Amino acid sequence: MSNRLPGIREVIKEKKLDALLVSSPENRRYLSGFTGSAGYLFITQQDAVLATDFRYVEQAGRQAPDYRVLRISSGLDWFTGLLEETKVKDLGFEADHMTVASHQRLTQKLKETPINGNTVNMAPLSGVADDLRTFKDPEELKLLQRAIDIADHAMDIVVPTLEPGVTEAEVAWRLEKSMREQGAEGPSFDTIVGSGPNGALPHHRAGERRLQRGEPIVIDMGAKYQGYCSDLTRTVIIGPPDDTFRKVYDFVLGAQLTATALVKPGVTGADCDGYARKVIEEAGYGETFGHSLGHGVGLAVHEYPGVGPTSQGILKQGMVFTIEPGIYISGWGGVRIEDIVLLEANGAKTLSKAKKIGKMGA
Amino acid sequence: MSNRLPGIREVIKEKKLDALLVSSPENRRYLSGFTGSAGYLFITQQDAVLATDFRYVEQAGRQAPDYRVLRISSGLDWFTGLLEETKVKDLGFEADHMTVASHQRLTQKLKETPINGNTVNMAPLSGVADDLRTFKDPEELKLLQRAIDIADHAMDIVVPTLEPGVTEAEVAWRLEKSMREQGAEGPSFDTIVGSGPNGALPHHRAGERRLQRGEPIVIDMGAKYQGYCSDLTRTVIIGPPDDTFRKVYDFVLGAQLTATALVKPGVTGADCDGYARKVIEEAGYGETFGHSLGHGVGLAVHEYPGVGPTSQGILKQGMVFTIEPGIYISGWGGVRIEDIVLLEANGAKTLSKAKKIGKMGA
Repeated sequence: MSNRLPGIREVIKEKKLDALLVSSPENRRYLSGFTGSAGYLFITQQDAVLATDFRYVEQAGRQAPDYRVLRISSGLDWFTGLLEETKVKDLGFEADHMTVASHQRLTQKLKETPINGNTVNMAPLSGVADDLRTFKDPEELKLLQRAIDIADHAMDIVVPTLEPGVTEAEVAWRLEKSMREQGAEGPSFDTIVGSGPNGALPHHRAGERRLQRGEPIVIDMGAKYQGYCSDLTRTVIIGPPDDTFRKVYDFVLGAQLTATALVKPGVTGADCDGYARKVIEEAGYGETFGHSLGHGVGLAVHEYPGVGPTSQGILKQGMVFTIEPGIYISGWGGVRIEDIVLLEANGAKTLSKAKKIGKMGA
Repeated sequence: MSNRLPGIREVIKEKKLDALLVSSPENRRYLSGFTGSAGYLFITQQDAVLATDFRYVEQAGRQAPDYRVLRISSGLDWFTGLLEETKVKDLGFEADHMTVASHQRLTQKLKETPINGNTVNMAPLSGVADDLRTFKDPEELKLLQRAIDIADHAMDIVVPTLEPGVTEAEVAWRLEKSMREQGAEGPSFDTIVGSGPNGALPHHRAGERRLQRGEPIVIDMGAKYQGYCSDLTRTVIIGPPDDTFRKVYDFVLGAQLTATALVKPGVTGADCDGYARKVIEEAGYGETFGHSLGHGVGLAVHEYPGVGPTSQGILKQGMVFTIEPGIYISGWGGVRIEDIVLLEANGAKTLSKAKKIGKMGA
């Protein structure tokens, strides 16, 4: 893994802090390479410490060569000890990850322990390492592409096996089995298979309902590969589609292709969302498209950048995000089509390759 | 699902609060039945509200009949609206779940919005619904037993298939496949298969290392069934065990059986931990048993009660927890044996039924 310390140290300097305490699993992994489930990174301009408990000390040493591994036990002496040793006064922490209880314990410990006679200030930060993560380097793109290819292939081999009578849960299982057999660590989130009316519930999972001819089936799934997540949605129908499906499918696909064609570095997430939303609004289905157009994807299945109606952040070259418009009709079902794109200098490059067939059989 | 509002309302009264805001997924599910991934419960003596976004409104109505479903959009007007409507002044929240950033947003909104001319006090709470969850009712025990049986059966059918050359990852996949085919939603955590020296890393997952004859193999896995988690560890060896394995296995099994036999309602988690630890210490391996003896298990794979050296809480009838001593020898490997027990009036009843064979083949 490339050394990501220079990048985060730049941010620490910009924020006029002495150090950053990282507690979220994805940022911990991104900045250090350590994949364990517990531990803190403590990063200053001179020092980089990975504090974790006995379970992970050996693994941390192997995975995070740029860090000094500190074994911690219960209690917070390691925390005040590090502050004393490094003479840190202004310490940033991840406010979107640290719980109120953890924060209370740390501040209480600071009150009880005089450190070089100094007061340590804990500064809540949002989206610090998360912003760095929006830009994927070549090494990340390779892993991400593998996660995408695995999901794409699973979709392409499982969709032709669908037939009336198969349950949603069985479809989900076929997809997950295929992803695992291709080397995925597992699904990147609970697989969604929404058949008929269930497709109108954007976060329906996969239940005991059986597939029927002529009904839309929304399949939203992804693979996790070496920590990287893919996210893919296709909507298919068994047998001849009704007029609603024909119409709705084409509007959604049109909206997706439009946003993909128009998005360029320099526009906001809201602009990109708007390209697709306008197509769906003009088709008369604006009210039914109740979610954001997309989201960043990487070590987390949902991460920065935001790509929704209120996303004011600028989309830049090197960012990776989903484009997934949908139309949902209560009682009938839904259509959603989702690909992952990489924003390049001239526009979006679609990384997903699963077939967009819409209908199958006859 | 049984109505769990009376129990939590009792706690709200004891804590002298007007209302409780529940944000953690397990407590939300436990108290309401709602399985969606986002939403808050807002519970007073008279009212019970489930506030969630458009994705889950339909599902929430079906799953949580004891609650009034409130559709929320971006912004926090729903929060101040509810406070105004219910005249709540003292509001408890889950300090171990709510992030510093969420808490800041809520308190900022309270500052900006005058509510009946009152000041609302947000009181950080720890382990409120979590304490209720330690006692499993018959309905929960049924689901938990099913989760346990699924993992037990997977272990019993996969262990005899192990042979030299098979990778740890392949073993994990066989176990997970078996659990899914038996109706599990998935594994309750990332399956651990630690062969040879990897077994000395208590939280090693399952990698590309191939099983070898004569090496200990630690397998720690569980199933999730209708939200309930099981957790099971067995240590096996292919072919004839060496002297270290023979000795270490028997110490660990002895420690486990001792703690299971001695634990009674009324002792602390630390007492229970001590029963097993003493056996391992007297065998001369005390230093190598670096983790807690066990932990509660239910909707979360790790929950209350604590069963470790510093767990001062009393173990009571109706609680369910793991008993999982281990001995880890760097460079050689590890032995851990884990069962789930239910504490009954007279002592612990072991709910796990997977075979404890230790060695296989010859």
